[in-house]
Amino acid sequence: MHAIDQFQDFFITYLEKQTITKEPENLYEPIAYILGLGGKRIRPVLTLMTTEVFNGDYKKALPAAMAVEVFHNFSLVHDDIMDDAPLRRGNTTVHEKWDINTGILSGDAMLILAYQYFEQYEPVVFMQLAKLFSKTALEVCEGQQWDVDFETRVDVTIAEYLKMIEYKTAVLVAAAMKMGAIVAETSEENANLIYEFGLNLGLAFQLQDDYLDAFGDPKTFGKQVGGDIIENKKTYLYLKAIAFSAKEEASQLLDLFSMQLEDNVAKIESVKEIFNNSGASKATQEAIQEYTFKAFETLEKMNIEDAKKKVLRAFGENLMGRKV
Amino acid sequence: MHAIDQFQDFFITYLEKQTITKEPENLYEPIAYILGLGGKRIRPVLTLMTTEVFNGDYKKALPAAMAVEVFHNFSLVHDDIMDDAPLRRGNTTVHEKWDINTGILSGDAMLILAYQYFEQYEPVVFMQLAKLFSKTALEVCEGQQWDVDFETRVDVTIAEYLKMIEYKTAVLVAAAMKMGAIVAETSEENANLIYEFGLNLGLAFQLQDDYLDAFGDPKTFGKQVGGDIIENKKTYLYLKAIAFSAKEEASQLLDLFSMQLEDNVAKIESVKEIFNNSGASKATQEAIQEYTFKAFETLEKMNIEDAKKKVLRAFGENLMGRKV
Repeated sequence: MHAIDQFQDFFITYLEKQTITKEPENLYEPIAYILGLGGKRIRPVLTLMTTEVFNGDYKKALPAAMAVEVFHNFSLVHDDIMDDAPLRRGNTTVHEKWDINTGILSGDAMLILAYQYFEQYEPVVFMQLAKLFSKTALEVCEGQQWDVDFETRVDVTIAEYLKMIEYKTAVLVAAAMKMGAIVAETSEENANLIYEFGLNLGLAFQLQDDYLDAFGDPKTFGKQVGGDIIENKKTYLYLKAIAFSAKEEASQLLDLFSMQLEDNVAKIESVKEIFNNSGASKATQEAIQEYTFKAFETLEKMNIEDAKKKVLRAFGENLMGRKV
Repeated sequence: MHAIDQFQDFFITYLEKQTITKEPENLYEPIAYILGLGGKRIRPVLTLMTTEVFNGDYKKALPAAMAVEVFHNFSLVHDDIMDDAPLRRGNTTVHEKWDINTGILSGDAMLILAYQYFEQYEPVVFMQLAKLFSKTALEVCEGQQWDVDFETRVDVTIAEYLKMIEYKTAVLVAAAMKMGAIVAETSEENANLIYEFGLNLGLAFQLQDDYLDAFGDPKTFGKQVGGDIIENKKTYLYLKAIAFSAKEEASQLLDLFSMQLEDNVAKIESVKEIFNNSGASKATQEAIQEYTFKAFETLEKMNIEDAKKKVLRAFGENLMGRKV
């Protein structure tokens, strides 16, 4: 098996060979720009890695991996418009660098381009990939809609929140891995199990993102620590804290989450204290472990060599041990 | 063969049976809304009709027809955001009724839903349809980008304008017909010929739209007569008038097309006079006839019964004889 950083290199080499800039320039330049901004390329790497786990040639999985990465970047371009975000990966967002119309139209083109990458497979594999992709892409849209809806709702339940992050984040991780399985033409059972693995790992990953956003080390965490608290985001930590708190503390948290401040240092400290004292921090860490454990459990059922199981487990442990 | 209004009924019955409204409501309600606004349903009708022309069962073509109509409405939703249009088919546009973010996300979901309608075909047909669809959808995006680019350019050529309307409008008419051919599993040659037929008819249709926008009868033309002139749109009429005019008249036209007025009655009259005197009106009518003739020419090469050729010809003549 190749190592993660090798898969990253293979993918980036492939990505850089694509001729994305063609006419009309105003449509394709923003696409080349966002795809060139970098990022960890976790999703396409998962596709390549999964193909090798099921004894396929990772080279065959490069177009599918590219489809996943192009789709992920499409969702970033459109989400950044909706969130009015000025920066993405430390660079100007597409709609800020160009304009909103360019962001909309270039995003649309990316969604279509993603489908076109599957055309390099023969019909049966093409259809399996495109079907999984459509299902996943629609779920990502639904997840984004739930996320938007939750901003103005005060009665979001833990179950609803989990469904939202499952759709908005986890299904694409799961689909990226299942695509690797489809390209490798492994059994349907293995393909479904790796989807389960990816889904649970994706959930653990997003919950850990929530956790690190509040409790991460500012020196190593990529984003601004406390960002979710500043924006009053109803994350797992917040929802658990509300659920676990006595009336007085819960209303204190509600108050804090209705504030839009210039200086957020005190607010962040107060909220983190409530997260800790209420048991929400502990509950979040337990949930992360639970989903990671669930992912590892599906590995046991998988019909592959033990060495391959170890690779997947190591990847999961590495991802969950991250501080960034 | 069924008649056009029968195909319309078949399609509308199928459309109304689709359960589009599901959760999250804020994502799916705008989709049901735009699809329910009506319109002539020309594109899906062409898909159904073409299937029957090539001796297929129109019922088999309903999902493909639906994909075409959903895609067309996706492009309307996103274009209306870009054009800041308040009305569509006499009703409030999606981004006006809800908001821009809803328009973006519901549009995205529609593009994905369109692909999902092809999943009702077996892999080889699925792949043919999805490939044609992706190519067409990307061209429509490119056409829209050219259209946006042309707004701020003063050196647009006739050739560029024709390429723009080909991509923005004609390729979808062509693809709608070719999809009918694919579903009917006719020869590749027939499928390519019907694409040519649709492309030329689509070009003729769009040029006629340009012509009727200026010279249509206000009593029968669906849109506001003179709308393109009010908005200073560089249509075929305008570009031909500039090309045919002497310096003085050309600069008068340029002046008129730099005005944003409250009362446009005099402007519309002056522009129409230049369109007529310069020979632009005549040239436009000739171009419409030329593309219609080209479409009818491809019919001759087609390997189908003469009765079927007559149906297609009658459809073309009907479309070109329209005053609405």
